[in-house]
Amino acid sequence: MTRLLFTPLSINSMTLPNRILLTAMVTRLSGEDGFVNKDIVDRYVRFAKGEPGLIVIEATAVHESKSGPLLRMSGDEFIPGHREMLKQMRDAGPSKVALQIIHFLKIARSGWRQTVDMLSLDDIRFVIQAYGDATARTREAGYDAVELHMAHAYTLSSFLSAKNKRLDEYGGRSLESRLRLPSEVIVRVREKVGPDFPIGIRFDGEECIKNGYGLSDSKYMALRFAQLGADYISISAGGKFEDAVKKENEPLYPYTGYSGDRTMPPASYQYGSNVYLAEGIKAFINAHGYHTPVVTTGKINTPKMAEEILAAGRADIVGFARALLADPDWPKKARLGLEDTIIRCIYGNVCKNLDENFKQVRCGSLWPRQFLHAPEAPNDQDPPVWPDGGAQLTAKLNENGQVRLTWKAAIDPQGVYGYEIFRAVNNGPFVHLTSSMTASHVEEYALVGNHYRYYVRAYDFAGNRSTDSNVTEITLDLRFAIPEGRTLKLDGDVEAEQGYSA
Amino acid sequence: MTRLLFTPLSINSMTLPNRILLTAMVTRLSGEDGFVNKDIVDRYVRFAKGEPGLIVIEATAVHESKSGPLLRMSGDEFIPGHREMLKQMRDAGPSKVALQIIHFLKIARSGWRQTVDMLSLDDIRFVIQAYGDATARTREAGYDAVELHMAHAYTLSSFLSAKNKRLDEYGGRSLESRLRLPSEVIVRVREKVGPDFPIGIRFDGEECIKNGYGLSDSKYMALRFAQLGADYISISAGGKFEDAVKKENEPLYPYTGYSGDRTMPPASYQYGSNVYLAEGIKAFINAHGYHTPVVTTGKINTPKMAEEILAAGRADIVGFARALLADPDWPKKARLGLEDTIIRCIYGNVCKNLDENFKQVRCGSLWPRQFLHAPEAPNDQDPPVWPDGGAQLTAKLNENGQVRLTWKAAIDPQGVYGYEIFRAVNNGPFVHLTSSMTASHVEEYALVGNHYRYYVRAYDFAGNRSTDSNVTEITLDLRFAIPEGRTLKLDGDVEAEQGYSA
Repeated sequence: MTRLLFTPLSINSMTLPNRILLTAMVTRLSGEDGFVNKDIVDRYVRFAKGEPGLIVIEATAVHESKSGPLLRMSGDEFIPGHREMLKQMRDAGPSKVALQIIHFLKIARSGWRQTVDMLSLDDIRFVIQAYGDATARTREAGYDAVELHMAHAYTLSSFLSAKNKRLDEYGGRSLESRLRLPSEVIVRVREKVGPDFPIGIRFDGEECIKNGYGLSDSKYMALRFAQLGADYISISAGGKFEDAVKKENEPLYPYTGYSGDRTMPPASYQYGSNVYLAEGIKAFINAHGYHTPVVTTGKINTPKMAEEILAAGRADIVGFARALLADPDWPKKARLGLEDTIIRCIYGNVCKNLDENFKQVRCGSLWPRQFLHAPEAPNDQDPPVWPDGGAQLTAKLNENGQVRLTWKAAIDPQGVYGYEIFRAVNNGPFVHLTSSMTASHVEEYALVGNHYRYYVRAYDFAGNRSTDSNVTEITLDLRFAIPEGRTLKLDGDVEAEQGYSA
Repeated sequence: MTRLLFTPLSINSMTLPNRILLTAMVTRLSGEDGFVNKDIVDRYVRFAKGEPGLIVIEATAVHESKSGPLLRMSGDEFIPGHREMLKQMRDAGPSKVALQIIHFLKIARSGWRQTVDMLSLDDIRFVIQAYGDATARTREAGYDAVELHMAHAYTLSSFLSAKNKRLDEYGGRSLESRLRLPSEVIVRVREKVGPDFPIGIRFDGEECIKNGYGLSDSKYMALRFAQLGADYISISAGGKFEDAVKKENEPLYPYTGYSGDRTMPPASYQYGSNVYLAEGIKAFINAHGYHTPVVTTGKINTPKMAEEILAAGRADIVGFARALLADPDWPKKARLGLEDTIIRCIYGNVCKNLDENFKQVRCGSLWPRQFLHAPEAPNDQDPPVWPDGGAQLTAKLNENGQVRLTWKAAIDPQGVYGYEIFRAVNNGPFVHLTSSMTASHVEEYALVGNHYRYYVRAYDFAGNRSTDSNVTEITLDLRFAIPEGRTLKLDGDVEAEQGYSA
């Protein structure tokens, strides 16, 4: 069922054990000094234990930066910390490891931000040099690959952007000029590390802002990156300053507007809602004779879905951030055929909100409060149990159309991690709807004319599942929708739906 | 080639001669009094001459409104004007005609706007009644159908919205409650006009705003509308207040933000960039046993593209606004196999900008300034000619990467309407790139390593084309992209591209 997902893939001199990529994800765990510290090491060792094919370490500045807790690779003094982290990660699992490197412009609490049209040609030359030097250090530290950050709100992305306001040969008046600095960076980076070191590019398939670029432009950008010898191309979306929501006395932060939702699609979005971008780009570059692997990301949840994306040829590698944050063991469990024990991300975006509020990033939707990293309980074979009298799951329809599910808390000596909620519509099968840390759930998507059945299942830190609870049922009467007593024609056969947003 | 597009379609008691739908499009041509006037009649008679299958007349208020030049159907006194317009339209062509009816909330120049949570239950009952009464008048006036406006920034859409802040049974706490008022309106409208009168629904497949709804919700909304007996479902996107750009001393206007670009995708978007919404909705309702025709819209330009959408089963009807504004004779020309004489919309969105600036809407990208409606020159068989010495088309590469094309103006006794620009990349065929009213064009998408050939063709009001100009050529040297003298690996076979954004 996951044959393609676990087919190794060679990327230049590096061979990934599988097609699962952990995308760069801000953690806010490093100190202000930019050095690797124990929390950072613990986070990535935890990821390494889960065995994704490629782990991309969070965005690391190529320059001296003042930007809160952000890793840096702006000088040789940062190398030893990365080397030590890599050693521990390699002891923990077979994953290859890339470092994502980034340059960003200045922002102020006043709301002012530096834009690309303010950069002198000397500034531009500095960016090129800094990327080159940081890449050399990346190789020196022992990384398997480097990933150049050209996505979202940062410097290289802002040159690629349709909103690039420069008038010169690095400017927004033509696609060629928008491509110039990113192209020069790739050329310099390649010169610094030689032909065999894998260079990945992460960039936006669509900016998702007014007058931003879309696939019409990004397909040409990807082609250029392939022509320049990029070894993989990883497609993101949005994450721009232009629609960011300004907070009093805080610097503007991307990901707070609509475009930020497009980067990390929340629960209300379709699963895989950005796959079309990788698909369009892959089809385009393949048609032009390039087979550079393309990575797709964005709310891809199950091994089955990942496999289907690969089988349909929509991407070559499947990237995950939140799904692996929720359960770093996702890849290993998928490999072992233990999909049912995966702790499933519910895309509640508490992680995203923590980041937006400048706090350490953890899975606040699913991890118990005391954990900074995903908990482990490897020797626990005992599943949670229901209390005497059982789960006593009940469903109640409120006047506002919500169905409120409540049940008794389960019991586990090592702690209950959460509850999975399953739903069947009419005669359909039960499917996983969402999960909850607490013993209740509010269902906002029950519709009249339908009969719903629910049950819940508790799980512990090791992913052991309890027995299924009792099944509770509810039918939303037609009169609920049309209170004035008129009729609603409901002759369609409403079948089971794949959980929220599927 | 356009077999499906010209296959008639029965919608309840109405049979469309073809699958081409002119979507409701604001004209700002009516008076402040809300009555049909001569400009309105002239605009729609001009559309009728072009023979689309269904013409949807612009949004017409169901209530006494203060909203500038907007048609109204809030009292019987408005019926005669519509009756007269319909008579003249039916004399002009075979199109069926629907009236789109709308209720909207109050807005003020201060920036204040009424939101759905401010409405009392009496206000809600009024909305239901007003839709019912306006539909009765619509039938009385002789329309073939009514279309209920549930899209964009208006009342019913704001109830459907994920941003609906009400807490009661009409509120945003559940999908069922968000559906309640739109459902009650459909039921009331049906009661008013009986089972045989076609009722269409236009609504957003995706809100395209932060925390807005997407296909996950809209597929259920469409299913509900189908269950309630809607006769067609027309899918739009965006057009919301939430991301509208505030202008000093003007009321907030939807379509000015990102979501407005999604409603009317500009030149920088892919063709057919919203088709996925109709496709997802059609697949969903079909799977549930409903075959209510689904309309797709949004930057669909050629008869070939429309036919492909139908052939792939992505929609049942193809809607056009700007393409028919640019050339109302598009349907007739497609039927007669005269695709090459269509005046092609370039999606410059001057029409959209006119609307945003509260001006009469015309095609400002392609129509000569003196025309309020699309010009006609039916007896003109004489094509434009080039002056002595020919077109003298030249291409010049600027330092900023732009290629500037210039040529001599063509000559036509009834006036030159514009110029079509064709481009071939490397060994590919020539394809239409864009059009221009003036004898110049700036190409922003020429990329290094490629050889480009261009020619232009003048056309007059009747669509007669001149001979092709001379072909001019330009190659962008690799050194242009990488000025520091490094090499760019360009071994891909870059083939012809389908114009901008294709």
